[in-house]
Amino acid sequence: MRDAQQIIDTAHAMADAARLAILPYFRDSGLVADNKRPADFDPVTEADRAAEIAMRAVLAQRRPQDGILGEEFGRSDGSSGVTWILDPIDGTRAFLCGATSWGVLIGVSEGGALRYGLIDQPYLAERFEGGLGLARLGAPAGTRPLSTRQGVALDRATLMTTYPEIGTVEEARAFRRVADRARLTRYGLDCYAYALLALGQVDLVIEAGLQAYDIAGPLAVVEAAGGIVTDWQGGSAADGGQVIAAASPELHRAALALLNG
Amino acid sequence: MRDAQQIIDTAHAMADAARLAILPYFRDSGLVADNKRPADFDPVTEADRAAEIAMRAVLAQRRPQDGILGEEFGRSDGSSGVTWILDPIDGTRAFLCGATSWGVLIGVSEGGALRYGLIDQPYLAERFEGGLGLARLGAPAGTRPLSTRQGVALDRATLMTTYPEIGTVEEARAFRRVADRARLTRYGLDCYAYALLALGQVDLVIEAGLQAYDIAGPLAVVEAAGGIVTDWQGGSAADGGQVIAAASPELHRAALALLNG
Repeated sequence: MRDAQQIIDTAHAMADAARLAILPYFRDSGLVADNKRPADFDPVTEADRAAEIAMRAVLAQRRPQDGILGEEFGRSDGSSGVTWILDPIDGTRAFLCGATSWGVLIGVSEGGALRYGLIDQPYLAERFEGGLGLARLGAPAGTRPLSTRQGVALDRATLMTTYPEIGTVEEARAFRRVADRARLTRYGLDCYAYALLALGQVDLVIEAGLQAYDIAGPLAVVEAAGGIVTDWQGGSAADGGQVIAAASPELHRAALALLNG
Repeated sequence: MRDAQQIIDTAHAMADAARLAILPYFRDSGLVADNKRPADFDPVTEADRAAEIAMRAVLAQRRPQDGILGEEFGRSDGSSGVTWILDPIDGTRAFLCGATSWGVLIGVSEGGALRYGLIDQPYLAERFEGGLGLARLGAPAGTRPLSTRQGVALDRATLMTTYPEIGTVEEARAFRRVADRARLTRYGLDCYAYALLALGQVDLVIEAGLQAYDIAGPLAVVEAAGGIVTDWQGGSAADGGQVIAAASPELHRAALALLNG
């Protein structure tokens, strides 16, 4: 990809701007008096919008020719062939609870192919990124390479998803076929589950009902770390919907067979 | 309580020691070559034991006359009437996944009454403490008072628990009666759910099958923050079992009625 370093630098500047925009709303301590607020004040929506505005401002300055697909403000066409796919806060329910599994998601595609992505957790100051030659976690304690865990069979695997309901009744049933064979199933980690997969801590993430902006960043990070991300039929997951992310080809194959079993 | 400040200082020294003991095992990056390890190497068990040993060493030095009830090494009688109730890593499954909802739990009882507790999250460097006149979160960003959220009715409440299975079929059914009335139910946060309750971010935590050392620290923190913690019959939760923690008396009453409905 042309301008790879500039793309990476821009993504980091965007994630930095999103951190600054979001953190004042997280676990809002009531420093702003509640009675000065309208009754329908929604800190997640406010933080979501503020973060997407902040990221778009960085793009307008650095790469005004690129297209944007954002959760909050939709699609803006560009002329460069590069599109930025933005979810300013993935995991708004976690955000609302004060939990730390939400994140800022950025994906970069060119000519329809995803080239780079990041998952940023502002409160932990953790940034997982992958693509354009990178696969790494940047955190206060230092930088660490990302690499999915290999050689774990399904009966030893840890599976993650966000809600036990998964999606439709059929989707929940398909998920359960995999969960029944996995060693451990954990819930509630939103985009952070993909980060933990890329970090080699868990083995499978299976979800349904995703949007393109929910998966672009995680997809690039997981694949750069050596994992496999597809839809439940084994096709592209770039448009969201039913998504499976696996640490290894063997695990992907085994879980896919059960999802469709 | 006599020696209140010394108790608090000792608890902090213990939690500091536990942090140092545990963190090298968390998200173990493989700096120690895997092939030098026995095949059954279990980082959680190792970290659990190392942390309890470290905490017991602090007590042996500072308050050798106190009793101890620890998850890993059981009961040690004392002569002072003060007992330290220790769970070196609550949420071992979260720990295994690289998630950050596990914690070090310390409770201090005197004459059978719980006087002080803390929930420490070493990776986040967050320490929630309550009792002996304190109710606060200490974190890298500063110190913040803990206070449960008041005035939230059940149909606006956020409910947390660790596993969707809860416990027995009957316990799961009782939990579901509350969950069906709450606005939002989230899973997977272990002891961190109680920390978020004390921080005013969530409204209810309902669990079953707890041990005394799982709840002593959280109980002291939540009650110091203005919440109510009992068993599902409204009696003492100090021995574990079925536990409900609520942000307010009204919410506690409403949820208890449904659990027993």
